[in-house]
Amino acid sequence: MTASARSCLTIVLAAGEGTRMRSDIPKVLHKVAGRSLVGHALAGALEAGSDALAVVVGPGREDVAAEVAALAPGAPVFVQTERRGTAHAVLAAREALAGGFDDVLIVYGDTPLVRAETLKRLRAPLARGAGVVVLGFEAGDPTGYGRLISEGSSLVAIREEKDASDAERAIKLSNGGLMAISGAHALALLEGVGNANAKGEFYLTDVVEGAVRSGLAVAVEAAPEAEVQGVNDRAQLATVEAELQRRLRAAALAGGATLIAPETVFFAHDTRLGRDVVVEPNVVFGPGVTVGDGAVIHAFSHLEGAEVGAGVSVGPFARLRPGARLAAKSRVGNFVEVKNARIGEGAKLNHLTYVGDAEVGPRANLGAGTITCNYDGVSKFRTVIGADAFVGSNSTLVAPVTVGEGAYVGAGSVIVEEVPADALAIGRGRQVTKEGRAAKLRAMQKAKKAGA
Amino acid sequence: MTASARSCLTIVLAAGEGTRMRSDIPKVLHKVAGRSLVGHALAGALEAGSDALAVVVGPGREDVAAEVAALAPGAPVFVQTERRGTAHAVLAAREALAGGFDDVLIVYGDTPLVRAETLKRLRAPLARGAGVVVLGFEAGDPTGYGRLISEGSSLVAIREEKDASDAERAIKLSNGGLMAISGAHALALLEGVGNANAKGEFYLTDVVEGAVRSGLAVAVEAAPEAEVQGVNDRAQLATVEAELQRRLRAAALAGGATLIAPETVFFAHDTRLGRDVVVEPNVVFGPGVTVGDGAVIHAFSHLEGAEVGAGVSVGPFARLRPGARLAAKSRVGNFVEVKNARIGEGAKLNHLTYVGDAEVGPRANLGAGTITCNYDGVSKFRTVIGADAFVGSNSTLVAPVTVGEGAYVGAGSVIVEEVPADALAIGRGRQVTKEGRAAKLRAMQKAKKAGA
Amino acid sequence: MTASARSCLTIVLAAGEGTRMRSDIPKVLHKVAGRSLVGHALAGALEAGSDALAVVVGPGREDVAAEVAALAPGAPVFVQTERRGTAHAVLAAREALAGGFDDVLIVYGDTPLVRAETLKRLRAPLARGAGVVVLGFEAGDPTGYGRLISEGSSLVAIREEKDASDAERAIKLSNGGLMAISGAHALALLEGVGNANAKGEFYLTDVVEGAVRSGLAVAVEAAPEAEVQGVNDRAQLATVEAELQRRLRAAALAGGATLIAPETVFFAHDTRLGRDVVVEPNVVFGPGVTVGDGAVIHAFSHLEGAEVGAGVSVGPFARLRPGARLAAKSRVGNFVEVKNARIGEGAKLNHLTYVGDAEVGPRANLGAGTITCNYDGVSKFRTVIGADAFVGSNSTLVAPVTVGEGAYVGAGSVIVEEVPADALAIGRGRQVTKEGRAAKLRAMQKAKKAGA
Repeated sequence: MTASARSCLTIVLAAGEGTRMRSDIPKVLHKVAGRSLVGHALAGALEAGSDALAVVVGPGREDVAAEVAALAPGAPVFVQTERRGTAHAVLAAREALAGGFDDVLIVYGDTPLVRAETLKRLRAPLARGAGVVVLGFEAGDPTGYGRLISEGSSLVAIREEKDASDAERAIKLSNGGLMAISGAHALALLEGVGNANAKGEFYLTDVVEGAVRSGLAVAVEAAPEAEVQGVNDRAQLATVEAELQRRLRAAALAGGATLIAPETVFFAHDTRLGRDVVVEPNVVFGPGVTVGDGAVIHAFSHLEGAEVGAGVSVGPFARLRPGARLAAKSRVGNFVEVKNARIGEGAKLNHLTYVGDAEVGPRANLGAGTITCNYDGVSKFRTVIGADAFVGSNSTLVAPVTVGEGAYVGAGSVIVEEVPADALAIGRGRQVTKEGRAAKLRAMQKAKKAGA
Repeated sequence: MTASARSCLTIVLAAGEGTRMRSDIPKVLHKVAGRSLVGHALAGALEAGSDALAVVVGPGREDVAAEVAALAPGAPVFVQTERRGTAHAVLAAREALAGGFDDVLIVYGDTPLVRAETLKRLRAPLARGAGVVVLGFEAGDPTGYGRLISEGSSLVAIREEKDASDAERAIKLSNGGLMAISGAHALALLEGVGNANAKGEFYLTDVVEGAVRSGLAVAVEAAPEAEVQGVNDRAQLATVEAELQRRLRAAALAGGATLIAPETVFFAHDTRLGRDVVVEPNVVFGPGVTVGDGAVIHAFSHLEGAEVGAGVSVGPFARLRPGARLAAKSRVGNFVEVKNARIGEGAKLNHLTYVGDAEVGPRANLGAGTITCNYDGVSKFRTVIGADAFVGSNSTLVAPVTVGEGAYVGAGSVIVEEVPADALAIGRGRQVTKEGRAAKLRAMQKAKKAGA
Repeated sequence: MTASARSCLTIVLAAGEGTRMRSDIPKVLHKVAGRSLVGHALAGALEAGSDALAVVVGPGREDVAAEVAALAPGAPVFVQTERRGTAHAVLAAREALAGGFDDVLIVYGDTPLVRAETLKRLRAPLARGAGVVVLGFEAGDPTGYGRLISEGSSLVAIREEKDASDAERAIKLSNGGLMAISGAHALALLEGVGNANAKGEFYLTDVVEGAVRSGLAVAVEAAPEAEVQGVNDRAQLATVEAELQRRLRAAALAGGATLIAPETVFFAHDTRLGRDVVVEPNVVFGPGVTVGDGAVIHAFSHLEGAEVGAGVSVGPFARLRPGARLAAKSRVGNFVEVKNARIGEGAKLNHLTYVGDAEVGPRANLGAGTITCNYDGVSKFRTVIGADAFVGSNSTLVAPVTVGEGAYVGAGSVIVEEVPADALAIGRGRQVTKEGRAAKLRAMQKAKKAGA
């Protein structure tokens, strides 16, 4: 049976309390690259070919369960009611373990940098008959890590720092925590773990010695140290974010985008950039953004949940919020916000504009300061602007309202009724000019101020 | 007598010309982390337990004296009329030295990275009987620095590079410049310094040999090299800023804030962040900002002198200026400026808004493009918006003016008179629509352009 | 004859396809520091004292030819019709080579970091009789580079990796690709290059052995490895950009500007900053910007083609577009865009303003939300605002229009006709207030929503 044909259950351990985060939010719900830590673990497990997922959470963690339900619908969530060690945590998912999977992968909800390829490599020895596979890494400084003690090509034990001999301490290959276990043996091995140790806990690492005792082969797969970086405090959260950004930037460059200053561009895990996209310095992508070929995202832009067509120009200082869909060659300029709106091909929203809950036709031009009033304090309404319409600067479009194709709205107008196609609408006060009055006004103002 | 019970005078030497700064501003008034270099020196001295401060400035430096007066009211400022060396500079503060302090600390106005704990350590040996304590550092490359020459545990001399033997040059422990001197001996030691050297200057370092001659114990305390980094040019100013930011970011993370990209967040020396605050990339804090628990500061925000309540959402692209006070759960969104204004709990200023010199009630909603006109060219006036009021988009509120509780202002209105509670006010032109006129207008415009 | 008196032709090889860029734009037209790669090569050659330039491009590259025509008018562009190696590419410029120049420099359109001083050094040995000079660099890891094989002080060959002996592979001095050739020998040497190699191409490096055979002296000049960094993919493009920015930032600091966080300031190749300019974090300079003494560019500003006077304050969140000319002590504040407009001394555009195609007089004050309507959908028109004029907030100035000196425009006005000097103009709807109506309106809105 080839590795790919083998069925796989991945158990995600997400019960850690994360007190060093100093947070009211559970550790695994903190985000990196726009996705929760546990979300990264789930996505990695799926990408590595898992057929089923199971998540172990701490007591009362409905918020984590809800995140799992949102990201991996149907994946069972088990509660580890007492904190009695990692093997105990895995056994909380006993019901899932009983599902008859060929492979069981054990990963962590706070270790989002493990690559899917690494998980695949971790499973591979199972297909060749191994009972257990441990993910190791060459630690730059192994102090504090469990060392992987091998005989020949087999792992025989994971030795904790405090129990290690001097020779064992010199070993740099350390335990990364992740493990693959043959599904046929997993339950027996886990149940065989005892708690005869100082803390009285059941350690997953003891599975190794149990397997050796049972005559099962135990293998090691190695990963770069960076991949097994866990998150225990805010500094590590930032470190992990930085590593993810490094990967996302490298992928964007390799894909044929220009990032003028890659270190200033922040991607979400799912940002998609087309060919010949140029991203200027200081751009932030939230989740759900697609940018078409040849588009330019100018400096100081913030995009989230937006679809940017080919050849579009965004920013500088533009904000695209969820539901912004910009057709090819349209332009969204400085100090412009677009939310839940389709912008037609070649349309222009160049300056100081808010377009929300709207449809803007092809080649329409919205002058500086145009604002759609989509909210009346209770409900939201739509604004529809036809193709080739021209909305004069500083106009206010009070939704629900339609400006027809080719219509023209005079600058500074408040538009409350439909403007038919090709019609001209003006809604503003008439200018009254009083000669010489400014000088008198200033004198009055100054007198008033002096008197105040 | 314990160290903490000893009285302490700190003399801040701030007379350097700083010609390598290439600036019209005196060196010690350049800022890092939003505070002048001399301000950092003064703050550090106070934090280290100084009872009195004295500052030595160059001739004609009223600007430095003014900064000292603002930051450390009452601290005497002495003028070093001629540049005759560091010991000569210290003696400019002779009057302060005569004050009978137990400890005298000598620090520099251009060396802002010395930690208060380091200054405390520098004083400690005085309490144990030392006459002089010198701050040393292990130089990565000691070339050019004075080497600290010890015999046993005692310092016997500070040897300048050019006077050092080969063996002495191999010493890496170098002179950091800062010194603590027993108050009982300070004046005599300083007056004992001669100027029989190439430049004819009186060097503070010579105090060491004087103390040794007088049979006083001379101790060394060591600091990391980074702490004694001085500022002599703009590159060093940037280096010092970077180190301060590194410290401030680490402290924010340790305190339980999430900085998605710590290297893109710029703090002032006094920024205070609550627990579970999230700061997105690219945020700049000027002085005087407090952010409450659970607030989110979105990307591209600029805050100065502002109080941000718990659970508030700021930005992206928001600017909070001095006097902005945002109550819990209020929202200040994109392209919004708030200055000298209280924003009530749950109030919303979501887009393209300027609120200055104003009071906005709880749950009030200001539509996109709302602008308070607080200035008539001569004076500033206040705008008061009541609880639950709704101001339609693109409205202009001409201060002084009040919009009452629960009142409603129609979009695009110019409000010049009070709107009573629960009243509706509209002040805008009436829409006039002319069918088919846009097409004719465009034809005219094009003809005109062609004719132009 | 001194080096400076010698005439020099520089041939820029710009025919590379750059497939690893994954771009529809030819490699040499990608930009760094706001200028195309080939533009950097041309500028470097001119700065190094070239009297004539010639550029070799690939077939059908009218776009590259157009860039050359724009940046170096009159420089001949030659097409290398087939890709048959670097010597073959140089010979495409045979006509230029026949021009009788003393020195011939050969540089690359994708290697923008070579300093002009390095090019001068490369030419220097020609003045002392050398026939060929090769630019070498000490490679950190020389794998893959051609090694420079010397005998005594003379270069005898450039050995490709695959042809090198073990001893030769140990040599770190590698071929940087650039070359200076005596004009008297250049054509003969280039024509002497054969193509008896695996690929059947004519390699420029073979000029060295040809020169040695002809008894000509061949010299080596060394450059730092960073200078010969070429651009073959987007990651290298970003690396080159980073190095250019590093240089530009260091130059700005050395010139007496404060960059609070130099790594967040992005310069164009031609940005000019005065003394005591302060640039806050996160500022992007496009090409053509000059900033006067003592100006402050606040965070999150974007400038291009703009002239900023002495003591001016820009930003935060300001955008200056081409043709913005800000006289001394004027202020352009947050969320303000200025395009093709002169702003008079001391004038203020502090918030949420768009000024395009305009003239703003000294000390004029434009309130928050002021917008010039410079475009009617077909043509652009000018707005002229006189000295000391005051434009109330949220006003709309419909161009062509003039607001006279000292005139006053009421807040929220739409100005369509001239406002004479010292006149007061108001153009807005009159406020109508309906007591108690907001409560009823809300009830209606809620009923409608519930019914919807």
